[in-house]
Amino acid sequence: MKKLNVAILGATGAVGQRFVQLLEGHPWFTVAEVIGSSRSAGKPYGEIVNWVLAGAPPADVAGLTVKGLHDDIHSPLVFSALPKEPAIEREPELASAGHVVCTNASAHRMASDVPLLLPEVNVAHIGLIDVQRQERGWSTGALVANSNCTTMPVVMALRPLVGYGIEAVHMVSEQAISGAGYPGVASLDITDNVVPYVSGDEHKMETEPLKMLGELDENGITFAEMKLGATCTRVPVIDGHLVNMSVSFAAEPSIAEIIATWQTFQAEDPVPLLPSAPAHPLVYLPQIDRPQPRRDRMIGGGMTTVLGRLRECPIMGYKFAALSHNTIRGAAGCSILNAELLAVCGYIEGFKPTL
Amino acid sequence: MKKLNVAILGATGAVGQRFVQLLEGHPWFTVAEVIGSSRSAGKPYGEIVNWVLAGAPPADVAGLTVKGLHDDIHSPLVFSALPKEPAIEREPELASAGHVVCTNASAHRMASDVPLLLPEVNVAHIGLIDVQRQERGWSTGALVANSNCTTMPVVMALRPLVGYGIEAVHMVSEQAISGAGYPGVASLDITDNVVPYVSGDEHKMETEPLKMLGELDENGITFAEMKLGATCTRVPVIDGHLVNMSVSFAAEPSIAEIIATWQTFQAEDPVPLLPSAPAHPLVYLPQIDRPQPRRDRMIGGGMTTVLGRLRECPIMGYKFAALSHNTIRGAAGCSILNAELLAVCGYIEGFKPTL
Amino acid sequence: MKKLNVAILGATGAVGQRFVQLLEGHPWFTVAEVIGSSRSAGKPYGEIVNWVLAGAPPADVAGLTVKGLHDDIHSPLVFSALPKEPAIEREPELASAGHVVCTNASAHRMASDVPLLLPEVNVAHIGLIDVQRQERGWSTGALVANSNCTTMPVVMALRPLVGYGIEAVHMVSEQAISGAGYPGVASLDITDNVVPYVSGDEHKMETEPLKMLGELDENGITFAEMKLGATCTRVPVIDGHLVNMSVSFAAEPSIAEIIATWQTFQAEDPVPLLPSAPAHPLVYLPQIDRPQPRRDRMIGGGMTTVLGRLRECPIMGYKFAALSHNTIRGAAGCSILNAELLAVCGYIEGFKPTL
Amino acid sequence: MKKLNVAILGATGAVGQRFVQLLEGHPWFTVAEVIGSSRSAGKPYGEIVNWVLAGAPPADVAGLTVKGLHDDIHSPLVFSALPKEPAIEREPELASAGHVVCTNASAHRMASDVPLLLPEVNVAHIGLIDVQRQERGWSTGALVANSNCTTMPVVMALRPLVGYGIEAVHMVSEQAISGAGYPGVASLDITDNVVPYVSGDEHKMETEPLKMLGELDENGITFAEMKLGATCTRVPVIDGHLVNMSVSFAAEPSIAEIIATWQTFQAEDPVPLLPSAPAHPLVYLPQIDRPQPRRDRMIGGGMTTVLGRLRECPIMGYKFAALSHNTIRGAAGCSILNAELLAVCGYIEGFKPTL
Repeated sequence: MKKLNVAILGATGAVGQRFVQLLEGHPWFTVAEVIGSSRSAGKPYGEIVNWVLAGAPPADVAGLTVKGLHDDIHSPLVFSALPKEPAIEREPELASAGHVVCTNASAHRMASDVPLLLPEVNVAHIGLIDVQRQERGWSTGALVANSNCTTMPVVMALRPLVGYGIEAVHMVSEQAISGAGYPGVASLDITDNVVPYVSGDEHKMETEPLKMLGELDENGITFAEMKLGATCTRVPVIDGHLVNMSVSFAAEPSIAEIIATWQTFQAEDPVPLLPSAPAHPLVYLPQIDRPQPRRDRMIGGGMTTVLGRLRECPIMGYKFAALSHNTIRGAAGCSILNAELLAVCGYIEGFKPTL
Repeated sequence: MKKLNVAILGATGAVGQRFVQLLEGHPWFTVAEVIGSSRSAGKPYGEIVNWVLAGAPPADVAGLTVKGLHDDIHSPLVFSALPKEPAIEREPELASAGHVVCTNASAHRMASDVPLLLPEVNVAHIGLIDVQRQERGWSTGALVANSNCTTMPVVMALRPLVGYGIEAVHMVSEQAISGAGYPGVASLDITDNVVPYVSGDEHKMETEPLKMLGELDENGITFAEMKLGATCTRVPVIDGHLVNMSVSFAAEPSIAEIIATWQTFQAEDPVPLLPSAPAHPLVYLPQIDRPQPRRDRMIGGGMTTVLGRLRECPIMGYKFAALSHNTIRGAAGCSILNAELLAVCGYIEGFKPTL
Repeated sequence: MKKLNVAILGATGAVGQRFVQLLEGHPWFTVAEVIGSSRSAGKPYGEIVNWVLAGAPPADVAGLTVKGLHDDIHSPLVFSALPKEPAIEREPELASAGHVVCTNASAHRMASDVPLLLPEVNVAHIGLIDVQRQERGWSTGALVANSNCTTMPVVMALRPLVGYGIEAVHMVSEQAISGAGYPGVASLDITDNVVPYVSGDEHKMETEPLKMLGELDENGITFAEMKLGATCTRVPVIDGHLVNMSVSFAAEPSIAEIIATWQTFQAEDPVPLLPSAPAHPLVYLPQIDRPQPRRDRMIGGGMTTVLGRLRECPIMGYKFAALSHNTIRGAAGCSILNAELLAVCGYIEGFKPTL
Repeated sequence: MKKLNVAILGATGAVGQRFVQLLEGHPWFTVAEVIGSSRSAGKPYGEIVNWVLAGAPPADVAGLTVKGLHDDIHSPLVFSALPKEPAIEREPELASAGHVVCTNASAHRMASDVPLLLPEVNVAHIGLIDVQRQERGWSTGALVANSNCTTMPVVMALRPLVGYGIEAVHMVSEQAISGAGYPGVASLDITDNVVPYVSGDEHKMETEPLKMLGELDENGITFAEMKLGATCTRVPVIDGHLVNMSVSFAAEPSIAEIIATWQTFQAEDPVPLLPSAPAHPLVYLPQIDRPQPRRDRMIGGGMTTVLGRLRECPIMGYKFAALSHNTIRGAAGCSILNAELLAVCGYIEGFKPTL
């Protein structure tokens, strides 16, 4: 099988770099185009990128000439790590021009015809692409978003528990600095410190799960109903968002039932067979002091959501901790998994791998 | 006025050092005896202490010879920074021998005749000393405890709000490493990491506030009634425990009312006049990203509880953040304030300063 | 004595804030004007400053309206925390207009008629002001610089040793993040990391000491002669630059002699009597693992240079560690000390305090 | 080929864990025995190990029952991560009993008949094993050491430059916390701090390179002659020791020659073919601010020494920075590479893989 060319929007930023890193050696996709700011356009990626990850960018991508935001793109599949503002116009423009766009930007997440896709959670929402194409008159193009990086572990943890009747979810996050991009958080702000506020994230955590856990029918997505309350804080951690969650259920599951439900959870086919799908979407650690960001963020290659400390909450039923790698599962890795799902489901014209 | 000699139990540990530091230049008390482990007994304090605070121990204390745990103590007032185990026996033994013991240890906090004293919160509980002396047959001795260091900001924040009918309090802490003493938390455990568990603290946070906010009458303390749920985590911060709190009230105060209630809160006399009492027991910061441990822990010399981010909670009414310096207000500083209160109230024989 | 009004250029930056903080309650100077960027001009300092130090700006300064860089300044004394570029023109312009300018900027440090003043090191260089005034035709104005923040501990440590015939100095620094200003170092660059390069600082460390340790005569300053080699690195420390130094001497002092020389070192009169002069300009710590930035940077209120670990170097004679607080002694605090010296020496017209 | 059983002494410590991690999936060796303290003996490794690395120990090793230090060992090859004291007796005892012991302990490093082996540097020193066996009357047993973790990058960097006549080497290290084992460095000692002293390491850095760069002939190893001076400091970094080096040469190589010498350096056969040998033992990074511990420590799987910032030193000729992963290349990884070399050279009886 010939690999599919992909383009990366915002390729020089922190999430863009994660796309480049995760796509190195990808079995289906090959990075053919990198799009940056006007400042970097025309120069070799390897020269102008301030690589914030370990080591150096892969040699083949380092040699690519960076394109400007409005330059022509030839790759059928586009990953977007754009900031919100430029994403508002450029992403639909590319979808309209026939590209399948898998975006990490927040700009279009809550649009009624854009799937907020997390394959293990709501694979059925992929059907919204048909609505989208019809409504917007797009033939081969599509626009698919993934959620906020802190929403991710929350929705992953909740998905298997939906059967117990989730009534309310109280969340307090301890988020890594990489979630703010680069240069992002000043070291003078976070060394020996906690910042008890992350702009915009509380609202996203209180709204995105309702769409992601909703039901798609001919009228679009009917949002899930539950009360969501979030407090977001920033801590001196490189990668990995930890969320302290308390949940009220209509049913009365036991602790053992909840753990068993998590541990036996599997995504619907074909998700578990996708190249970037982790062997276990959820892992529950029995140790009393886990999950920990530095030690557990790379479980499943950074694609597994790691749970721990399930116990009764005197106030809301149960409480526990959930951890996801914010720039892998919470950003670039999820977009790539979304694209893999789109491919096998036939949404990328002329490229339908068999599993 | 001649200063009162005081002894410090556990003087070489992290909290013991804070006692030594805070008592330097104290207007009423002078450190006359430092008690350490058998390993350090007989040696000059300045030689054997591994001073974990800034600079060096005060010269006069550095020159004191460290005593062993069971050596005779001559100071009428004893501050205890003992670990729980040795505190169980030694503290009542000293009180029985006539010493007033102000302890930071958890050993006797929940005993029915031991005041769990936080002067701005429950000055009336000082009356429990009379019960204690009668029941235990102590004449001049007394045993007074202060709360856990993470309980401290919680109770300080709640005290002015009692009138609104506190029904439930949900707490997620982000605690500093100094709370674990020295050597305490291994750097390999906390660098670039969060540890989502602090042994013992969740239970203390779910029980101590009920006693501290309770009412004292002839039958002892009737505990307050409210639901308390705590999650305790450790973050890479030197000093300052931050607690993310959500509270349900029976009444319906507005945000402006709550802030005004906090800002106008003053302790009952004579507390505001005590040497270690901060000008403002509570400060509310209006900035959206405060309080922050590194920037706000030293407000009021580390004795002020700093609040911020009050807003509606979709689940429990209101939520906000509370911060206290854990080894000053949350430990040694509170014990010293307690001792000052005991002195002016006449509970230290032969030493009653006038304010 | 009526206090002297002072203005602070670059008052909203990290060093500018240190000026504001250190001048709170200063016995001679009062902050009357704060000058910021055009973006902040016209607004109250307290509203627009992103206060990176602990707590909040002093209330009286918080209420000042920020002026723009080119607005008129009325204060006779001006402290400058400007970046290099705007300092090039604006500082001499103000001196020419009659202001005494004490600057922390690097722009004019090596100009032949500008004293690179460190009072304990080269008080005699103050005489260069007379040359400066004559050459530039300034009457009451003057321009006096202090050194780079990493040069500072080096020169302080070397000054008392000049008599031994310093031949060569090898330096490797471990510098704090506050040295880069705000936002300065990105947290993604320095968390769990060392950056082995600090732009521009190696050159400054290899040149500034030669001027500072030089001799002033009628021909200006004759630079000291010695070989200087510097490597500058950045570490995850908030404040305090540590320099690992190796030194070759022409003479053969013993370790005891060197330590005694440091410990008995005193600046020439009137320097020790100045309000901001520390009781001890140099302190040598005997512990094998000191000085340490977090524990020792605030010795002498951040104005003392702290030395330790003096021992033979197999290569260069002796080696030791030197530490200074980079934004106090290494920046704002030194400028203030310089200004105090200028005042008592009669270089600020109409304001000559007696000691 | 049947894999060779290996035992790990000190398997529960920080370096012991690195052995377990690196040997997972090793093509030649399989972990058959794990030896711990008496406290952990008799229990499953997975239950008693406090795993300080990412994730969890491999399942097969987790299931092994930990043996006590003096229990019988059956594996022909033994890796030792013992502390110095127990290593003094136990390691020769095991070699005497016929085991090939590859140790990371310092106990026997400088013994005249023990190779201080770093395959890329001194593969010929392996011949010392014949002397050792003859002198000590060992038949199949052997004792081979690797160097201190901070010595490692120094010797790797110097080895290709020996031809230029190294006369003196000045070193200032910035070492990671993992070098002190677990619990090792207290977080209160290193957060927001540098500790300018690492017990024992300066002496090791000033002696071990002389042996490692020496010549083996019939009289044993003739030590290299050069002046070595080291200062060791600890910084808040998880893994990766950075050494700032200045070097004097008898010859006068240009910067370009030195870089070319490093980049073309290859170990002698059969070293480059060993399973754990990195593709490039040395990598020189051209960026002005590299190498950095967090970004560059995992180059070559943590087995490559990373160099950068080569420039003239005003004092000693040239200076540069060298970085190695201290628990991989500087400890467990080097021992494993040593064992691989011993195997292919026929020093492990009955186990001689072909490359």
